Amino acid sequence: MGDLLATRVVVTDLARFRKVIDLSDSKLVGLPSGHIHSDELRKIPPGGSFEVRDKRYYILSCDMHDFILDGLKRNTQIVYPKDAGYILMKMDIAPGKRIGEAGTGSGALTAVFSRAIGDEGRLYTYEHDIGLVNHAISTLGLGDGDTNIVIHHRALEEGIDEQDLDAFFLDVREPWKVLKTVYDALKPSGHLGVLVPTTNQVSRMLQGLNLYDILVTEVTEIFLRSYKHVPGRLRPLDRMVAHTGYLIFARKLRPGSYKPFQKDVPVFEEDDEPDAG
Amino acid sequence: MGDLLATRVVVTDLARFRKVIDLSDSKLVGLPSGHIHSDELRKIPPGGSFEVRDKRYYILSCDMHDFILDGLKRNTQIVYPKDAGYILMKMDIAPGKRIGEAGTGSGALTAVFSRAIGDEGRLYTYEHDIGLVNHAISTLGLGDGDTNIVIHHRALEEGIDEQDLDAFFLDVREPWKVLKTVYDALKPSGHLGVLVPTTNQVSRMLQGLNLYDILVTEVTEIFLRSYKHVPGRLRPLDRMVAHTGYLIFARKLRPGSYKPFQKDVPVFEEDDEPDAG
Amino acid sequence: MGDLLATRVVVTDLARFRKVIDLSDSKLVGLPSGHIHSDELRKIPPGGSFEVRDKRYYILSCDMHDFILDGLKRNTQIVYPKDAGYILMKMDIAPGKRIGEAGTGSGALTAVFSRAIGDEGRLYTYEHDIGLVNHAISTLGLGDGDTNIVIHHRALEEGIDEQDLDAFFLDVREPWKVLKTVYDALKPSGHLGVLVPTTNQVSRMLQGLNLYDILVTEVTEIFLRSYKHVPGRLRPLDRMVAHTGYLIFARKLRPGSYKPFQKDVPVFEEDDEPDAG
Amino acid sequence: MGDLLATRVVVTDLARFRKVIDLSDSKLVGLPSGHIHSDELRKIPPGGSFEVRDKRYYILSCDMHDFILDGLKRNTQIVYPKDAGYILMKMDIAPGKRIGEAGTGSGALTAVFSRAIGDEGRLYTYEHDIGLVNHAISTLGLGDGDTNIVIHHRALEEGIDEQDLDAFFLDVREPWKVLKTVYDALKPSGHLGVLVPTTNQVSRMLQGLNLYDILVTEVTEIFLRSYKHVPGRLRPLDRMVAHTGYLIFARKLRPGSYKPFQKDVPVFEEDDEPDAG
Repeated sequence: MGDLLATRVVVTDLARFRKVIDLSDSKLVGLPSGHIHSDELRKIPPGGSFEVRDKRYYILSCDMHDFILDGLKRNTQIVYPKDAGYILMKMDIAPGKRIGEAGTGSGALTAVFSRAIGDEGRLYTYEHDIGLVNHAISTLGLGDGDTNIVIHHRALEEGIDEQDLDAFFLDVREPWKVLKTVYDALKPSGHLGVLVPTTNQVSRMLQGLNLYDILVTEVTEIFLRSYKHVPGRLRPLDRMVAHTGYLIFARKLRPGSYKPFQKDVPVFEEDDEPDAG
Repeated sequence: MGDLLATRVVVTDLARFRKVIDLSDSKLVGLPSGHIHSDELRKIPPGGSFEVRDKRYYILSCDMHDFILDGLKRNTQIVYPKDAGYILMKMDIAPGKRIGEAGTGSGALTAVFSRAIGDEGRLYTYEHDIGLVNHAISTLGLGDGDTNIVIHHRALEEGIDEQDLDAFFLDVREPWKVLKTVYDALKPSGHLGVLVPTTNQVSRMLQGLNLYDILVTEVTEIFLRSYKHVPGRLRPLDRMVAHTGYLIFARKLRPGSYKPFQKDVPVFEEDDEPDAG
Repeated sequence: MGDLLATRVVVTDLARFRKVIDLSDSKLVGLPSGHIHSDELRKIPPGGSFEVRDKRYYILSCDMHDFILDGLKRNTQIVYPKDAGYILMKMDIAPGKRIGEAGTGSGALTAVFSRAIGDEGRLYTYEHDIGLVNHAISTLGLGDGDTNIVIHHRALEEGIDEQDLDAFFLDVREPWKVLKTVYDALKPSGHLGVLVPTTNQVSRMLQGLNLYDILVTEVTEIFLRSYKHVPGRLRPLDRMVAHTGYLIFARKLRPGSYKPFQKDVPVFEEDDEPDAG
Repeated sequence: MGDLLATRVVVTDLARFRKVIDLSDSKLVGLPSGHIHSDELRKIPPGGSFEVRDKRYYILSCDMHDFILDGLKRNTQIVYPKDAGYILMKMDIAPGKRIGEAGTGSGALTAVFSRAIGDEGRLYTYEHDIGLVNHAISTLGLGDGDTNIVIHHRALEEGIDEQDLDAFFLDVREPWKVLKTVYDALKPSGHLGVLVPTTNQVSRMLQGLNLYDILVTEVTEIFLRSYKHVPGRLRPLDRMVAHTGYLIFARKLRPGSYKPFQKDVPVFEEDDEPDAG
């Protein structure tokens, strides 16, 4: 992963232009006001700037945040930094941890996890779509050998090779279908994280979690609201992302430890009794 | 840091009770339905549970998120996990990085940074209040020698010992007063992060940043909205935290690289021309 | 309604104290710093102030917003001003309109509607709970004759007396069960509004609406985020209301006019295909 | 105003198409799948539908919400329904009230106020830009005589003709410059409302209000977050409006009644002491 970032730079202006350039290629780079050749870019150290037709551009080292948002070809919806950062905190992703993930998707969260666990850690990522597997192998440089990522071309329903994982993150369509598999792969007290885009999936997943010795610790969503950078006219941007997904966090308990509120609560009940009415 | 977490567990119920217990002490632990002795707690492995007067409690390993929210004695406002996670992402805090921070405060972000950079990384944290310095030394176990944290009892205005830092985070009252010092301590393309609670400070800081070769990349705030865990009656909690602070992120440019929009924009102008009127 | 407000005043301080006082009663009024008698209050005109033990209080005329939030005894969850205001706009509640409502509940929205439609308008409100009916009669002064409110002690399932209503608002537990009744009572192009607290109810209601010649125009929720009033340290309050309910707005079409996206979409499908995954 | 709406209809589809058509004109109306002539539209009663090339369209009566969002030519930023509704509630805008407004702008809030106060009420709106004055006269049909709106072509700095107004709303660039004028025009206990887009203006306005016998009751902002209408895949829309403006609400006190927290608080202070640090 480190090498992935090392060969790349970000080119940006003061408005909305932002591009991640792989300097190991030799090519012409398109800009709002013209072009620059990557051979020229290589001569400018990160933190420097250049002008093309009176327009100033800035060159920055490429970090993980830049790589995910602007350097990654997206074949699926990606996990956004606002969500990824909170996932790191809630699931205690740290150097040396052994983490599982499904599916790999476009590899954004895969990249974040891999970077956070360092050389001592290990990330096991499962993806049933061979196209996405190959995309991840090429995008994340998994063929090089020197990586902390193990990718499995397999649907989670077919089982998990690893055991005693510190954490497992699920970004799949029907996470409730693989709960037993994931439960068995986690160590006691280990972290489970789930991302789903609809409220129906949240309900369905909570219903599923209630059937296991798993303690739900949080169901949440995260908003990021950014501002214009003008000190004398400070105000939020006109529009923002309103939704990426709902996050569910839980901890594995030992078999027999859980005494849930309610087992088998149907997601819809005829006598549903909301608290405002 | 690892040891800090290793000796601790979290005791929780299905409602709002949550307590971080240091098992290296021998003492009686208060619970909503009675007490349990830490000697008893030690016998229950993480992921297990116990009952006191028909009420079930769960024991979990203590992770960084638990430690910050429930294990840390707060002498000042802490940086919340929702903000800390995004800070990790935006500032590319990863194993091996060399990071600066001021002030140390209650040590919440200090703990997060220390954990994220691993054994190879180094965190230099500055705090001018001797009480907070001593609090951090004791809370974060800095006296043990085996740590990646260096704490300086010093106001940032008096200078920074380190150079070529990968990132610097400012959580101080008047961050605009230490900009030159921080600029000099960062390496080119390095990350600057700032947390301030008021819009006036955001304006004042943006005004200050405009005077340096620094590229502001984002001014933002983060909301966390959590839900009740009931699948058949899914709905947000009634209340939420509405504000912790505004986050400003920026990158250091090389001297002379910056061509700003507007230098010296006054924060209030008589002819201020807002876009709705 | 006008009389209700005319006999009342608001007493407030610069902090959080706020009380609605009915000046037609003669009584002692409790304050944070002591007491004042209502006979004294009556002598101070609205817009005036008085002091009790060096603490200043302000007297304001009581408007509908004050009355709902501070003057109404709440037996049920009330509809908040942030939601009520948007309901007025979306349902085009204006002088002269004929409006239906169920249930009456604590009468907050009833009061808002009654005020907005004026003397020429008419509000028909249905409530099956006799306690709430009596509460509304006494709180909203319905016994006086001079009112634009007609209250029915009846569950909506038993039918609606009125026809060709301009708008109907539903704040009941299972609004999907009374859709045929409400559809028949509305005039073509008339407005339907619904408030439900859970996502499951939103799904269930949308499913129900799909079976009728009704055009859903919006499903939404409203947040209100308030700030401290300090100009030099402007910042949001620490906490806010995170949820009151989801609002659904729709328009009645003539029989046979509707060609829906999907009839009979089950709320949970095994092959549910969310757009992130 | 009533006539304005009476001659208009809304044409909509199930996706995002929405158009307000004035049926008193005879013209061809463009649609996503072709055209329809207004003479044909006139034959279809509100609540009905028609098809053009297999695509179904719905005809609804035009209400105030539709008129503002889709029927009004915008020469300036308009006040959105989410804000307008809350303004109605907070300022107690109701039938019979006498209201002031500056500036008129594109007339969106003018239209909302006019409708809410009914025939017995009176709205006095001030606008210094003759182009906007003429636009309002033509858009809101002010030339017809039968209206409750009085429009003044005048900057508020030149004075207000009216006295004892129930409420005054300011949507101007520098509202702090007309505070004395507005104070004098309001009756005691009357409502003042202000919309400004930047935090700097909020600070400046709060500072100004502190100099008068005016009680600030709320500084707030309103978010509207809408959902897709699919019952089995319920989720918020991907994007939302993040900002329209900050709302300040206040009440006029009688001269000499106000004992403020702090007079003359500078908006920036060197010893500014935020509560997180």
